[in-house]
Amino acid sequence: MEQIEPISRMINALSRLPGIGQKTAARLAYHIAGMPLDDVRDIAAALWQGRKAVRYCAVCGNYSVDELCSICSRTERHNGQICVVRDPKDVNAMERMHDYQGLYHVLHGTLSPMDGVGPKDIRIQELMDRLQDGSIHEVILATNPDIEGEATAAYLARMIKPMGITVTRIAHGLPIGLDLEYADEVTLSKAMSGRHEM
Amino acid sequence: MEQIEPISRMINALSRLPGIGQKTAARLAYHIAGMPLDDVRDIAAALWQGRKAVRYCAVCGNYSVDELCSICSRTERHNGQICVVRDPKDVNAMERMHDYQGLYHVLHGTLSPMDGVGPKDIRIQELMDRLQDGSIHEVILATNPDIEGEATAAYLARMIKPMGITVTRIAHGLPIGLDLEYADEVTLSKAMSGRHEM
Repeated sequence: MEQIEPISRMINALSRLPGIGQKTAARLAYHIAGMPLDDVRDIAAALWQGRKAVRYCAVCGNYSVDELCSICSRTERHNGQICVVRDPKDVNAMERMHDYQGLYHVLHGTLSPMDGVGPKDIRIQELMDRLQDGSIHEVILATNPDIEGEATAAYLARMIKPMGITVTRIAHGLPIGLDLEYADEVTLSKAMSGRHEM
Repeated sequence: MEQIEPISRMINALSRLPGIGQKTAARLAYHIAGMPLDDVRDIAAALWQGRKAVRYCAVCGNYSVDELCSICSRTERHNGQICVVRDPKDVNAMERMHDYQGLYHVLHGTLSPMDGVGPKDIRIQELMDRLQDGSIHEVILATNPDIEGEATAAYLARMIKPMGITVTRIAHGLPIGLDLEYADEVTLSKAMSGRHEM
């Protein structure tokens, strides 16, 4: 059966979201078609008005409602550390840890020559500008441990070290709770090379 | 970190959809917050306008744009068979088979005394009304093979058989491609009791 037009329109829209394939989109669309009108209006309004209300922090590039995000606007977070991540969702992941007290810098991408993404295409210049006033003593590179993330970290380290600022990379190794036998080779190799004396 | 308000609003809205937990909702919300405005407007509009455009077929209860659904409005489907299912999505599943040429009846629920769902709460009377004019010679009960689905099928069979209409139940057994050793006991038991001579 061809789907009726309003439902196939919902399926097309939903399947544009990450991790939502045709089958999941169809399941959601069938559910939404049977929901009370008010509930569907609430969801549509939350997405559209939510999206309109979000902008990027003028300093760090994180999602924000105001010109400065909730982290950059708190003076107690200005402790001389900047943690560099790829996406706003990575800021959220770091904050869930409740451990890091410094600032962030969101690159909005990673260097990827294969995809034509060079240093000028991500927020590297903005990071360099932030390092000029001497208030930052450590830059923590927390890009993902994949090819692009490692390349970006290496590039940034080469740029920043000559400024006399400490550059660190988050550790990679065995995740807590994962048995050795289930770890992939790259993770194991990172865990070995990053070993420390007990 | 507490999420900023527009993002937590998106997360709350998305997590009301089936199969979307807090974590998936957060992943989607972070993605949507970074999407182009026009794309998000398209998605919100597809959901809201799609929902507004969907109603129930006045005869079978399937999703429809017009008063009669695309199946009930085609005379070649009026072959004397009605397949009874629980939800509109079940009609879609049956139609994907491209094999069944008759009509449908969507109950919009199954009998469930534990949840207070009785015969008057689902579209059973509407089904009985459709059977009055003598044009239907077979009712195929295709409710799910769970407790409520079986109870509903048994109830309907008791109601319809005295009218001289053939009542059939779709077969339950081993799904194609599933090895015996992985089948659950109830499925195996259904497969045994439904065995037929070769």
